[in-house]
Amino acid sequence: MSYLRERIRRDGVIYPGNVLKIDSFLNHQIDPKIMREIGEAFYEHFGDRKITKILTIESSGIAPAIMAAVRFDVPMLFAKKTRPSTLKADEAYVSEVYSYTKKTTSTVVVPKDYISGDDAVLIIDDFLANGEAASGLIDIVRQAGASVAGVGICVEKSFQKGRERLDAAGIEVYSVVRIREINYERQEIVFREDH
Amino acid sequence: MSYLRERIRRDGVIYPGNVLKIDSFLNHQIDPKIMREIGEAFYEHFGDRKITKILTIESSGIAPAIMAAVRFDVPMLFAKKTRPSTLKADEAYVSEVYSYTKKTTSTVVVPKDYISGDDAVLIIDDFLANGEAASGLIDIVRQAGASVAGVGICVEKSFQKGRERLDAAGIEVYSVVRIREINYERQEIVFREDH
Repeated sequence: MSYLRERIRRDGVIYPGNVLKIDSFLNHQIDPKIMREIGEAFYEHFGDRKITKILTIESSGIAPAIMAAVRFDVPMLFAKKTRPSTLKADEAYVSEVYSYTKKTTSTVVVPKDYISGDDAVLIIDDFLANGEAASGLIDIVRQAGASVAGVGICVEKSFQKGRERLDAAGIEVYSVVRIREINYERQEIVFREDH
Repeated sequence: MSYLRERIRRDGVIYPGNVLKIDSFLNHQIDPKIMREIGEAFYEHFGDRKITKILTIESSGIAPAIMAAVRFDVPMLFAKKTRPSTLKADEAYVSEVYSYTKKTTSTVVVPKDYISGDDAVLIIDDFLANGEAASGLIDIVRQAGASVAGVGICVEKSFQKGRERLDAAGIEVYSVVRIREINYERQEIVFREDH
């Protein structure tokens, strides 16, 4: 069993409305053992895809993405939620990402210089829920004329529409942990066992 | 010679006003070889300090900090620039960080649960210029009653006041690369050789 799944079961905090807080070991405080497992798991799954670049979105995607980048030995790049003052508008790929949690839309930005038409890009993120962040990043990869080699996720909420949406778009998704159900009343997390 | 220094010399872009842009390999797009060097360099310098936690600030500190955390095998934690909705005000340590580049003050937040009085904390950041971010993080560590084991920096601008300020406060600083001078007219970066 994955160590990440073990920590979710032990230390995840369940809130109403399918909210699972795993800030104490994944995306605010970060357990290095989980990060090593994640880097290995992504490499085991996508290692033969001739990936040339890892792309994520700040801030909580950065740690798993850098672990993947070190394992694949390719550059990692993160989309920023504000355009740096040294980057002109026409020098950037831009997409919109809606957050259901925060109920806000962010404009995410990647310098054009950092993705080329030859790149095979692996997109990494901490959570997959409705697939908004992944879709924004896929949009950026396609604007660059590059190919999406796949999407690697730490924790997938399989009961929300993101997985289905990416499957329907023909994007290969691999998630280290897949959650079938988060039950607030019973304070229970049910995992999918079929991968 | 450090690979990071080599990349700065080759690919750093100098702007007026001592601005050095190294977004293409350190803090927007990230070279995994630099990250491995940084993790090793911090461990070589601070490895005997019985460090129990790595602390940084989002977003550009996260990659070097997670590399250090994996090498030290201790949890990494980053201060956020906004308080998460699930974190109550009295559950967080808070400090103010002024950015000379952006001319804005950020309130940075760390959950109280994640630092205890027993912790020996290594603070990591990508740049040291005026020392504002490092000082805000030191303030948070002290609010928690924990000890500051040191400050690890990827790129230090030794001609700005941050280094002197931390030295004067008795904080041990180690920087992978130290820059003595950034000369816009000559388009030249002069490194310190004395470490």
